[in-house]
Amino acid sequence: MQITLLSALDYAGVATFAASGALMAANKRQDVLTFIFFAAITGVGGGTLRDLLIGADVFWVADPGYVIVCTVVAILVWLTRGRMLPGQTLAWLDAVGLCVYAVVGAAKALSLGVSPPVCVVMGVLTATFGGIIRDVLAAEPSILLRRELYISAALVSATLFVGLRMFGADWTWASGIAVALGFVVRAGAIIWKWHLPAFTPPQKRD
Amino acid sequence: MQITLLSALDYAGVATFAASGALMAANKRQDVLTFIFFAAITGVGGGTLRDLLIGADVFWVADPGYVIVCTVVAILVWLTRGRMLPGQTLAWLDAVGLCVYAVVGAAKALSLGVSPPVCVVMGVLTATFGGIIRDVLAAEPSILLRRELYISAALVSATLFVGLRMFGADWTWASGIAVALGFVVRAGAIIWKWHLPAFTPPQKRD
Amino acid sequence: MQITLLSALDYAGVATFAASGALMAANKRQDVLTFIFFAAITGVGGGTLRDLLIGADVFWVADPGYVIVCTVVAILVWLTRGRMLPGQTLAWLDAVGLCVYAVVGAAKALSLGVSPPVCVVMGVLTATFGGIIRDVLAAEPSILLRRELYISAALVSATLFVGLRMFGADWTWASGIAVALGFVVRAGAIIWKWHLPAFTPPQKRD
Repeated sequence: MQITLLSALDYAGVATFAASGALMAANKRQDVLTFIFFAAITGVGGGTLRDLLIGADVFWVADPGYVIVCTVVAILVWLTRGRMLPGQTLAWLDAVGLCVYAVVGAAKALSLGVSPPVCVVMGVLTATFGGIIRDVLAAEPSILLRRELYISAALVSATLFVGLRMFGADWTWASGIAVALGFVVRAGAIIWKWHLPAFTPPQKRD
Repeated sequence: MQITLLSALDYAGVATFAASGALMAANKRQDVLTFIFFAAITGVGGGTLRDLLIGADVFWVADPGYVIVCTVVAILVWLTRGRMLPGQTLAWLDAVGLCVYAVVGAAKALSLGVSPPVCVVMGVLTATFGGIIRDVLAAEPSILLRRELYISAALVSATLFVGLRMFGADWTWASGIAVALGFVVRAGAIIWKWHLPAFTPPQKRD
Repeated sequence: MQITLLSALDYAGVATFAASGALMAANKRQDVLTFIFFAAITGVGGGTLRDLLIGADVFWVADPGYVIVCTVVAILVWLTRGRMLPGQTLAWLDAVGLCVYAVVGAAKALSLGVSPPVCVVMGVLTATFGGIIRDVLAAEPSILLRRELYISAALVSATLFVGLRMFGADWTWASGIAVALGFVVRAGAIIWKWHLPAFTPPQKRD
């Protein structure tokens, strides 16, 4: 199990999303196994979809470390009864995870020669799909339908990263700037409720 | 990006389903990014599942044109506030898309040497899965559970196409007849509420 | 179509889950096509996810027999109006299917050289994912959130099988013991309502 910067970020992202999955199980007053199930699905769901779509080996199948990380995180949340993770702390961890993951997802697709627009899609999917599956399985209103900047933050990070790399920026700068600006967008959504205008249907005449 | 008849039909089908996804986002009064997300998922969802199942490269990962089409359609629906797509127009577009897509899906599977019964399944999945994911993510009653002939129309198109090809009909005739008869079934469902008999549970004795 | 013990068990598991999918369609008073759709998705869903994740050819795409089995089961449930499958009978069939499938899933992953912890995950996913998709598509409370030992039974079977194989037990013994003990867990859940302790949130101080 080779540990590089990318894979360290990857583990951090998985652990963060796993914690949000375990907290969802806690909200539903489930048992410890369901904690692990939700932690794992939320933690690895987005990256799994990315890998299937780009035809790569699914990352956690090749490396059992990810499943173990999700299991440990779920058990920790269970044992501490979520006290280590009050709502706001998790929202901020999740914001970091979201932007890091958008960059990791886009970077993996880029490295496999996928075209830039599709790399942006992969970044967004990697960052958001775990949360989407978590909400669907828990029968909660999907994060997709909450009117906050969530997908947008992932989109900013993924687009900036892919764009900067296209213009020749080196990996460190591109990922640093991309994560930082995506995080600003998400932070604005958390603190000042930033959002995009919602659709307003046209007046009906009948 | 090579444009053949099959891929032109393919783009038309993706655009139609993308519009239905964007309209779902409009019903939920979402922002423009969510329009794009729903348009993309509905537009490419069925074909994505087909490609994963038959082990082909996922079509929109190899060709960024599909993601761009979905994005453009979503923005158009947003800008025109859906006025270009009143309910009935969309139902008819969707009916065409459904039958075209059932044939495209079955044809792609056939061309990869998949056995006929499984090709029929692939046609039905390609045509219906985008709409199923759209409904699940929007937390709407699934099209699966509405008692109209929807899956049936896809099944008629896919079965006829595969059957006619088995009996040696050429591509043009097979696809034309298959799309036309599937469309008749769906049109009957839209206009005269055609449906299959629903299950009636046996009398209970207790 | 080569029939070995493993594939015979496989067909039995698919048929059992297909019956539970068809019964869900019966509860929703759907038409016969929706019976087939739910039977197929529930029957092959878990194994499909497993095959996609481990990079194997999807089992029912290569062998049309599975789709045919699901179709036949769905039509039988429709024709007999579910009378052949009263609730309790199905719960017991499902319990057998669950444990057999957990072993079949883990065994397939092991045979492809996947690491033991991931093989356990594959066993659990294979056994439970069909039912999870069934519940999501039917908009029913997910089996994930019911507080009975269901995932646990699959986990016991998958873990025992993988563990016994690691310690050199032969295939027959490992699978027999694994299925039997998983079944005991599930039987306890059905008869005596065995369950794991649910999460209790900490007292709030504010």
